[in-house]
Amino acid sequence: MAPYSPPTGGRGGKLRLDFNENTVGCSPHVLKRLLEGLSGSGLAVYPEYVETKRALAEFFGCPENSFTLTNGTDEAIQVLVNTYVDDGDEVLLLRPSYAMYRFYAEVAGGTVREIDYRPGDLQFPLEELLEAITPKTRAVLIANPNNPTGSATDLAGLMRILARAGNAAVLIDEAYYEFFGITALPLVRDYPNLFISRTFSKAYGMAAMRAGCLLSQAENVAYLHKAQSPYSVNALAATAICAAVEDKRYVTQFVNEVLAAREDLYSGFRRMGIRFIPSNANFVLFHCGDRAIPVRDRLREMNVLVRDRSYELPGYLRVTVGTRRQIAQFLAALEQIW
Amino acid sequence: MAPYSPPTGGRGGKLRLDFNENTVGCSPHVLKRLLEGLSGSGLAVYPEYVETKRALAEFFGCPENSFTLTNGTDEAIQVLVNTYVDDGDEVLLLRPSYAMYRFYAEVAGGTVREIDYRPGDLQFPLEELLEAITPKTRAVLIANPNNPTGSATDLAGLMRILARAGNAAVLIDEAYYEFFGITALPLVRDYPNLFISRTFSKAYGMAAMRAGCLLSQAENVAYLHKAQSPYSVNALAATAICAAVEDKRYVTQFVNEVLAAREDLYSGFRRMGIRFIPSNANFVLFHCGDRAIPVRDRLREMNVLVRDRSYELPGYLRVTVGTRRQIAQFLAALEQIW
Repeated sequence: MAPYSPPTGGRGGKLRLDFNENTVGCSPHVLKRLLEGLSGSGLAVYPEYVETKRALAEFFGCPENSFTLTNGTDEAIQVLVNTYVDDGDEVLLLRPSYAMYRFYAEVAGGTVREIDYRPGDLQFPLEELLEAITPKTRAVLIANPNNPTGSATDLAGLMRILARAGNAAVLIDEAYYEFFGITALPLVRDYPNLFISRTFSKAYGMAAMRAGCLLSQAENVAYLHKAQSPYSVNALAATAICAAVEDKRYVTQFVNEVLAAREDLYSGFRRMGIRFIPSNANFVLFHCGDRAIPVRDRLREMNVLVRDRSYELPGYLRVTVGTRRQIAQFLAALEQIW
Repeated sequence: MAPYSPPTGGRGGKLRLDFNENTVGCSPHVLKRLLEGLSGSGLAVYPEYVETKRALAEFFGCPENSFTLTNGTDEAIQVLVNTYVDDGDEVLLLRPSYAMYRFYAEVAGGTVREIDYRPGDLQFPLEELLEAITPKTRAVLIANPNNPTGSATDLAGLMRILARAGNAAVLIDEAYYEFFGITALPLVRDYPNLFISRTFSKAYGMAAMRAGCLLSQAENVAYLHKAQSPYSVNALAATAICAAVEDKRYVTQFVNEVLAAREDLYSGFRRMGIRFIPSNANFVLFHCGDRAIPVRDRLREMNVLVRDRSYELPGYLRVTVGTRRQIAQFLAALEQIW
């Protein structure tokens, strides 16, 4: 089992289109609340989540006992897997997807089975996945939209998965929900095997803070608490969550900017004759053939960071969609070396 | 398996002698660095730990690959257990001790065996522990000094444990090291089964930040990374660690104040004829007999918080040692109701 080693380090001062982050930063309201939070001796005190849980319950329109705060989506995956997957249990994943599903499934001793996204267009392999689910399947971990493909399934597809995977915990990781607009939240009431993770690391611009949550029926959430540290979320992260959901307009504006920039990006790719996978999120796979690594390296020399995915999707790089201005800068750099 | 539910909530505005925190707050230098860290769009970026790892390596006088940053001591325990304990493996604990050892051992499917601290004086049960270690023991988790007893073992005792537990990962949780002054760090070189956790939640006054680390031989640390999220520590927590180790004088002064206040506390207990367990840390168990819960409740009404331990040590409450002034306030309150 290989450790997950993301190529971070030395990203400062560059156009960071490699980690699907918010490329302009979090809401000023978040910063203001954090500055207030630093006054006094509050840092010496163990975190309290009362205010944050109240704010999130209102934000999601659900009871406070139907979610748990998590240290980013990573802890959401870990807590879910540690609660439901024992040694040798079957865990179903899609490939390629977010690396931490496999990581935590293996740490828990699970037996991982992977279904490939559809060759060619990389669309969601609904029928193949449904066929692979058996009564022995203990967990199904899906990102919707998926990273790095950008493809997604609709609620009808999810309902078929949930109905078929009756013996499994089904995680729908909605890290990129804000760019997609379709959530499985309304299904929680009807499907006791549904778990949904959300994060403040992407559209909300708070990746540094490690703040997320995991939602499900209250009875399930009580089980999740049995595998979770009571203090896994930093108190400043909890404060930042409160402030972030108070400023919905900020995120809406950023998302609108990204969606416009994504159109610009598609146009640029078409102009240059570059094949790409249309995306439901704030990143797009584009095809560089044999030149994937050299293109990434040349872009880096021009202070533009993109992410190599060619090791799992031959020929593909992934670029995060920032503002229209940032995408213009990316396209200008790419055009120079293409 | 019961979830760990600490009685937090509503602690604001009270004299908080219930969680062994630093009762005056972290170094002003930490706050200054955090304020600087909040400028710019840094919060949108995934954490980088380069500077923090360099600062900690210098602080501990060890190579950067001989420790991993952790989301408080809780994650240190979790990563160690997830790396070395599989379903059914034997985990040896002392009783009473920090609740999260048992918690994570059970989440990992380990079989927990507990050795009691010596009845009466609650001293470290070295011989009993040595006798309990067998070739089947996969992990031994020890707090030194221990919470809530305040008792400890010396390096000679630890060396005997490490030598006997050759098939086990031995965790020495040094959360209260700063008040004790004896560390197992010099033993890391000679004992490949030794793991040491440190935290910034106690003497350093950063409990809100969830910042700690786990030290061992480099080869072990490489294994630990295989069970750990690459971003489990919040970027502001990483910044705070850097700043904290730059201001050693602040912690030394706080520790000296606590040690002086602990003497005042002992004197106060003796004056009132209250039995107590002399401690190596910033908390002391004192005996209230049948009145433990009422005494805790009466103190709370006077805005003084202490922690009930009578459910595991009949008749005992635990009080955190703050400043001399805070301890005088506690003793005055206690005297009124005793």
